Amino acid sequence: MNELRKDYILDRYVIISKERSKRPLLICEKPPAADDRTKCPFDPGHEHMLFGIINEIKKGDDWIIRVVPNKFSAVSLEGDPEIKTDNKFYTYASAYGFHEVIIETPDHETELEELPVEHIQGILKTFVWRIKELNDREHIKYVSLFKNRGLEAGASLKHSHSQIIAYNVKPSWISDELLKVYEYFVKNESCPYCEIIEREKTSDRRAFENESFVAFAPYASRFPYEIWIFPKKHYSNISNLKNEELFNLASMLKSILMQLDKLGYPPYNLKIHNAQPAGEFFHFHIEISPRLSVWAGFELETGTVINTVAPEDAAKFYRGEIK
Amino acid sequence: MNELRKDYILDRYVIISKERSKRPLLICEKPPAADDRTKCPFDPGHEHMLFGIINEIKKGDDWIIRVVPNKFSAVSLEGDPEIKTDNKFYTYASAYGFHEVIIETPDHETELEELPVEHIQGILKTFVWRIKELNDREHIKYVSLFKNRGLEAGASLKHSHSQIIAYNVKPSWISDELLKVYEYFVKNESCPYCEIIEREKTSDRRAFENESFVAFAPYASRFPYEIWIFPKKHYSNISNLKNEELFNLASMLKSILMQLDKLGYPPYNLKIHNAQPAGEFFHFHIEISPRLSVWAGFELETGTVINTVAPEDAAKFYRGEIK
Repeated sequence: MNELRKDYILDRYVIISKERSKRPLLICEKPPAADDRTKCPFDPGHEHMLFGIINEIKKGDDWIIRVVPNKFSAVSLEGDPEIKTDNKFYTYASAYGFHEVIIETPDHETELEELPVEHIQGILKTFVWRIKELNDREHIKYVSLFKNRGLEAGASLKHSHSQIIAYNVKPSWISDELLKVYEYFVKNESCPYCEIIEREKTSDRRAFENESFVAFAPYASRFPYEIWIFPKKHYSNISNLKNEELFNLASMLKSILMQLDKLGYPPYNLKIHNAQPAGEFFHFHIEISPRLSVWAGFELETGTVINTVAPEDAAKFYRGEIK
Repeated sequence: MNELRKDYILDRYVIISKERSKRPLLICEKPPAADDRTKCPFDPGHEHMLFGIINEIKKGDDWIIRVVPNKFSAVSLEGDPEIKTDNKFYTYASAYGFHEVIIETPDHETELEELPVEHIQGILKTFVWRIKELNDREHIKYVSLFKNRGLEAGASLKHSHSQIIAYNVKPSWISDELLKVYEYFVKNESCPYCEIIEREKTSDRRAFENESFVAFAPYASRFPYEIWIFPKKHYSNISNLKNEELFNLASMLKSILMQLDKLGYPPYNLKIHNAQPAGEFFHFHIEISPRLSVWAGFELETGTVINTVAPEDAAKFYRGEIK
């Protein structure tokens, strides 16, 4: 029997359908995308392919992490950032803001999780620095920080990197989440995620736990092997984390992604859900969404997502109990 | 300069970014998926691979359209269809309902749009019949009718077909749309889509028009070459269409998809947005979403979608003004 489940707080349904995982071609192993290193703008020595360097973290004489402008920028500092409406139905503005890339390593072949924990901690520090910096810029309503790995997750380059888009609109899905959390907060005088963490860290969806963080497969997972990471303390923004907490987050990220790689380096998206600019009531977290299936007509029409891997099975996999 | 645009009525933003279309690998021509005809359950003579036949339309002795149960069903008639909540955060039910496939032609190789208009009209009649029939079944809250073409659009079989999932929850995205249309209706005593059609059929986003239907590239298109089809008359449900209107819809669908195929038979989803079960205020329409790009971390986090093909360019393409 397939099960219909709703997200903890959002009006978002999934159908957990193990039956459908037997369908041909659903989880398909694809050959790696063609990867021409001579054209990689992120490799050392290829600086002429970049549009500039915003900053870099060095170890001795060599850079180990770099922040650069995105060459194919979705937003820019041109035009009028104020949102206007014509004739009732046409609402528009310039797509205004900053689109940056964080090159996570000079090594073309190394995945994020293969780096030392201290190096990953350095990348997280860079995230925090960029989020703080861009959040304060005029006209910026949200700073989205995400990582795409693999073609099916939208990455056009193999070399390990993350991206930031800071732009001039409050994103609908983040606003929805903030609103639902706030509604709960007002009614119950507590954070729903604080309660959810308490329940999930001992449920059959638990995956990883350390001093500062808990990771679990969410009850209404929309992606096979989806996993969420929450700080145990109620922090609204990743920039609230202390140095040792960033280390613990780096360590957990490494463990999660190393385990995920056992599925054959699957494509995934990693997204930071932050309360920016408002919202002490919010509980920041990271969502990792492996992209092993496609949202088809049903998903795009209804918003109900069919997921063939039950979160309880995903959690078992993360705990190393099944291969 | 890239442009930020909002949907006509929904809180849904896109960034129209022609610049990003220069990015490597975005619109990639992929080789057709391996297609083993001996394993196609939809071919005549392969009835033993089906789980049964619900109905068929015949021409002489041979079937030309067939309705069959989906073998890898996302929903079923097992379990308790009533939605329950445990411990505040866990909402669930059996994924209850009907999952059917409409085999559009016995010919393995023929695409929907390559069929005669009368045949496509017959398929649309079958849609209407199944929607009416399943809508009346107990516990069914929505009948979703959609077509997936191509692997990237979620189709696991090449043989031309559509699908129906009738299930026990009101889908969030359809509910959002119904609510927004209803809010407009209450405030303005008119249908927003009736006004939008009037504007768009003479705008630079116009694509096709016949006696009964208008098709245009929506102002805030989320997909490259996205196109919406509306009946000129305010009908809330596809089942309101008269026979000659179904013919005119078939004829327009054929024209749109034949033109789309000039991009190299791209994968696409086709979805019917119906007001079921309530809502005379709603204006039914069909949305066609070619799947030439991937929603990445930014899209999945924010709900803001980057689209590299401006709807004005898509409309020009549909009007045959650019190739």
